[in-house]
Amino acid sequence: MEHPENNEEYKGLIVNSGIEQPSNVNPYLQRGRFARRHLTAADYVEGIVKGNVTILGQAVTLVESTNPDHQVIAQEVIEKCLPYSGNSVRVGISGVPGAGKSTSIDEFGIHVLERTGGKLAVLAIDPSSEKTKGSILGDKTRMEKLSVHPDSFIRPSPSAGSLGGVARKTRETIILCEAAGFDKIFVETVGVGQSETACHSMVDFFLLIQVAGTGDELQGIKRGIMEMADGIVINKCDGDNVEACHLAARQFQNALHLFPMPESGWTPKVLCYSGFFGLGIKEVWDMIYDYVDFVKQNGYFDHRRAEQAKYWMYESINEQLRNGFYNHPTIATLLPAAERTVLEGQKTSFVAAKHLLDTYFNLLK
Amino acid sequence: MEHPENNEEYKGLIVNSGIEQPSNVNPYLQRGRFARRHLTAADYVEGIVKGNVTILGQAVTLVESTNPDHQVIAQEVIEKCLPYSGNSVRVGISGVPGAGKSTSIDEFGIHVLERTGGKLAVLAIDPSSEKTKGSILGDKTRMEKLSVHPDSFIRPSPSAGSLGGVARKTRETIILCEAAGFDKIFVETVGVGQSETACHSMVDFFLLIQVAGTGDELQGIKRGIMEMADGIVINKCDGDNVEACHLAARQFQNALHLFPMPESGWTPKVLCYSGFFGLGIKEVWDMIYDYVDFVKQNGYFDHRRAEQAKYWMYESINEQLRNGFYNHPTIATLLPAAERTVLEGQKTSFVAAKHLLDTYFNLLK
Repeated sequence: MEHPENNEEYKGLIVNSGIEQPSNVNPYLQRGRFARRHLTAADYVEGIVKGNVTILGQAVTLVESTNPDHQVIAQEVIEKCLPYSGNSVRVGISGVPGAGKSTSIDEFGIHVLERTGGKLAVLAIDPSSEKTKGSILGDKTRMEKLSVHPDSFIRPSPSAGSLGGVARKTRETIILCEAAGFDKIFVETVGVGQSETACHSMVDFFLLIQVAGTGDELQGIKRGIMEMADGIVINKCDGDNVEACHLAARQFQNALHLFPMPESGWTPKVLCYSGFFGLGIKEVWDMIYDYVDFVKQNGYFDHRRAEQAKYWMYESINEQLRNGFYNHPTIATLLPAAERTVLEGQKTSFVAAKHLLDTYFNLLK
Repeated sequence: MEHPENNEEYKGLIVNSGIEQPSNVNPYLQRGRFARRHLTAADYVEGIVKGNVTILGQAVTLVESTNPDHQVIAQEVIEKCLPYSGNSVRVGISGVPGAGKSTSIDEFGIHVLERTGGKLAVLAIDPSSEKTKGSILGDKTRMEKLSVHPDSFIRPSPSAGSLGGVARKTRETIILCEAAGFDKIFVETVGVGQSETACHSMVDFFLLIQVAGTGDELQGIKRGIMEMADGIVINKCDGDNVEACHLAARQFQNALHLFPMPESGWTPKVLCYSGFFGLGIKEVWDMIYDYVDFVKQNGYFDHRRAEQAKYWMYESINEQLRNGFYNHPTIATLLPAAERTVLEGQKTSFVAAKHLLDTYFNLLK
């Protein structure tokens, strides 16, 4: 199923990185020159299960496409890949811009590939990427070693508008990658918003990368993110910075004591490392593998995955209910005036809401 | 508009405390013996605006009623009270069971009434009260001083099922109380769940009561609650416990530094006090009044209230959208099977969600 014009993609196994091919329409599905290469859902599934990363990349493009015809095939492909999925360790990696996520992921990725073999997929959730056209993971040179590693698959964040949409596509891409034999999944997210919650709800271990600094710099962490972390790692622990890092680690460790014990029964740890100098990487992954052993033994690993699947079903329902309402042209027109009546104290929030809902459900009849 | 049989209610101004009258149907609106006392919306509004607490209590009962006819009148009353509302300081008070909330609220309440005069309403949000029939504020003896104070109005949590429903009723009760001239509103909530978010989103200042103890005891705080606090106060700072309280205060103060600066521009403070011995009460309220002055000056006070009004409109919409879906008999029947297909990996979360939604919207046509 290989195609000569696609050879480029084999080099670093970076397929449709979002830079070379800004359109997310799979050329093989367009009419014209490549029409003869139109693949069926069964073709995609066969290619994916055989571990063909070109086909995998094309299937991911299909998942990300907003074209309804593409979505029909994509959903069929995902559904048929489901039985082959799940056999992986999924690690979410978050941190504020400047925490050194890319360098760290590069080091982490090489470490786990050397340590346990297998294949690594690096995905991302970044709803802002629509504006910036792939600010996160958009530049493959940011992961120098992984980008040329034969067993890695790097994919930038889908740029699909809402967080819910982006997160869903990333979650579906995880299924395809696992079906293609990727047994290590990293999901990168930028530590400045709600994307962490989305990321947290699709991974087995949520790693928060921090840097040491003044108290003010530490304030970059958003509400609740620290509490989601299964582990906190302080980057740039090298040279003059070692002491500050160890101090920050103690502060975080103390702060973590103030939170309730996570459901996993695992006490989150705080470690220092240096992504740039490759120091302490092994210890970070010792921690993650210890965690995985721990939660596989106490049953939390499977429990969390089942809860996540349910969570995404309900998230999906709730998001589509909201989208149906707020994207309805009549509602979209009425909403600003309704907001004003509430702000000016003419109507209670509840009455304003009820009027809009009555209008909506009448329109659906 | 007084009624002889209602005299009981005047004693401590505790109207329908949920113990004496477990049914939330206003007797005056039932047919029969009291039918002659049927009040119109205008009657309620007149009574409320004149500060008649019996009428206020009856109107709150109406707000809490699940009877659709009562809701129609209730919404009209609230709407007409809206222009008279808003002139108050609303303080949310949260803390885990055993933190000494009741004793503290009793002391706090007497303090603010002596300090600035006016009238105090103590309300509550406790979705669990449906099961326990008023576990929170159900027992008026828990607030010995306030319950017999002529300028206080104590009302247990509405027991209306979902958190959204309970929170809405409390929010609407705030409007009625303010229209009746209550210029101080306390909203009590039990610090063990999502009710804090609801409480936080209807108050001007969110106060978290903690107790000192071992690190383990501190773990009772739920995710994100500490980050919502505008102030944290450590209770039971008396006798042998003083040192432990000051240590806990330092720990909380350090932990707060790890969070981003709140939008208010106000740095949350941590103080120690003793509700039982009445120590440090003034300092707690100095802090709260300082905060109010600060945010009234920088405009955040009005901004937060406007945001809260909008928030509740959208919460109301989203909750009713969800209720419409999940309470639909066909959906309720199909949901368990859909969950199973997701858990067993037969369908993706998204496809299972989509099937349910397609069914739902077809049924609405």
